[in-house]
Amino acid sequence: MADRIDYNPTESAPVLVVGSVAFDNVITPHGSKDGILGGAASYCSFATSYFTQPRMVGVIGNDFGEEHLERLRKRGIDLEGIQKDPSGPTFFWKGQYHENFNRRDTLDIQLNVFEKFRPDLPTSYLDSQFVLLGNIHPALQMHVLDQLKGDAYVVADTIDLWIDTERNALLELIKRINLFVINDTEAEQLTEENNIIKAGSKLRELGPETVIIKKGEHGALLFHEEGSFALPAYPVTELRDPTGAGDSFAGALIGRLASQNRSDFKAIKEAILYGTCTASLTVEAFGCDRLESAGVNAIVERVETLRKLISID
Amino acid sequence: MADRIDYNPTESAPVLVVGSVAFDNVITPHGSKDGILGGAASYCSFATSYFTQPRMVGVIGNDFGEEHLERLRKRGIDLEGIQKDPSGPTFFWKGQYHENFNRRDTLDIQLNVFEKFRPDLPTSYLDSQFVLLGNIHPALQMHVLDQLKGDAYVVADTIDLWIDTERNALLELIKRINLFVINDTEAEQLTEENNIIKAGSKLRELGPETVIIKKGEHGALLFHEEGSFALPAYPVTELRDPTGAGDSFAGALIGRLASQNRSDFKAIKEAILYGTCTASLTVEAFGCDRLESAGVNAIVERVETLRKLISID
Repeated sequence: MADRIDYNPTESAPVLVVGSVAFDNVITPHGSKDGILGGAASYCSFATSYFTQPRMVGVIGNDFGEEHLERLRKRGIDLEGIQKDPSGPTFFWKGQYHENFNRRDTLDIQLNVFEKFRPDLPTSYLDSQFVLLGNIHPALQMHVLDQLKGDAYVVADTIDLWIDTERNALLELIKRINLFVINDTEAEQLTEENNIIKAGSKLRELGPETVIIKKGEHGALLFHEEGSFALPAYPVTELRDPTGAGDSFAGALIGRLASQNRSDFKAIKEAILYGTCTASLTVEAFGCDRLESAGVNAIVERVETLRKLISID
Repeated sequence: MADRIDYNPTESAPVLVVGSVAFDNVITPHGSKDGILGGAASYCSFATSYFTQPRMVGVIGNDFGEEHLERLRKRGIDLEGIQKDPSGPTFFWKGQYHENFNRRDTLDIQLNVFEKFRPDLPTSYLDSQFVLLGNIHPALQMHVLDQLKGDAYVVADTIDLWIDTERNALLELIKRINLFVINDTEAEQLTEENNIIKAGSKLRELGPETVIIKKGEHGALLFHEEGSFALPAYPVTELRDPTGAGDSFAGALIGRLASQNRSDFKAIKEAILYGTCTASLTVEAFGCDRLESAGVNAIVERVETLRKLISID
């Protein structure tokens, strides 16, 4: 079994993770790499795997080798929900980061088998109590919720594309989720507020009882009915590839909640700490490389460092 | 006597504050205002006055009316160090903030009597144990240090102008100070590091035992030999005029240290909390208006709010 943090076989719940599986070509100011295993479902699942068992749902194409499945399996990820579509290659994305990583351009995108992807859940996943909806089309995220049997704690992420093109579907979706994770510019875009504090409050009025606004290197802000919480980012000194940072954050966040089987204010604050530290590992290497190999100790050590960094006592 | 927070007549030390005194015309996306009392020494002194007595050093011109001196006096600020130069008007600055306040342009600047300013200290200031050097020319900041009798805890601020034009003088100065306050872009400019964590460490190698990097709406980072500390900003929802935020931060920071007569790691962390909350009041109105009238309760309440916001427990 993969190593996990504070896992308890009788208490900890598995996490249903739905999203894209991709091959990425990434260009950064410090180098580039092709054919990286990526996509939201991959980053989320790797991150969740440090806390509890991920149940991964996504689609892979005829170019997706056994070696990549083996990488996921090694981290204890349940792959029953992975659909193999032999009709074409896996979703492909090529992107470039510019100086200081402040801006990212998509140079190429080929949906391939992802174009017809429909996240139908295996029967064994239907009872999932913790669900992470990665940033796929809101109608597909909704399709996942419609299949679930029983109450689940649902975390969802989105991207600017869906705010631009599927605003209504997205607004319908977020009425049905518990925790909405979104980055600062997207939060301002969705709420049409240019103040992040007001945007956070407004998002809660749209349905989700809890909202987390991600500010990248500036940390994250939690909006909850019991109060707010602001956490600085882990102090990363070697930024290599920011791809998947947000997915790693969300994956670790829900992984921590599911492993503790809690979703109260205090538990969410703790989970943000784990999410932040897990994401800080991801960005130190291309793709999933560092995230996949970090080990629980690296995460636990960073959580302790971050705890000290924010302590006023 | 002006109201002060946790002031103790036998323990608390006064703070020598040196900087510019100015009249500002400020244009923002939400309105504009002319003839605002400004300058680093004004903002710093008003902020310090909530904690202990400021000893203010600066120069005013023939247009500086008694009503402005009265505003400063009302806050218990010692004005013996204010020089009146009848040969011309007070330093004048006109600036414009653009959408989202992310960019500021200087539209006009007239040094006037500030051009010949030399911060000669009154005899009664020479024993100051806490000194705040606002962002004036590094040679003038040095001239202040040369006059002091006995050891003082020295905090200094700077701006990009001096990093560009007076780099060597600035590097000499910071060897002699205890706590260097600088914003993120200036820290990267001075150290030629594009990572803020590395920049903070590098600044400490240049002399100051303690460095605080200000990140505006994203908070502040403390670098100290005993460790680091990251504090998010106070969640401001009504940003009106960011002018003087950095000066208010520094003024309250050293005010808190002097009022407690401490400069250890824990005391500096607490002082950053007070600095952040005091600056958050300044930016809610044009010029010094809100800072000047806020009262101690507004600061104390915000410190409690911020304490809760950063508490993981």
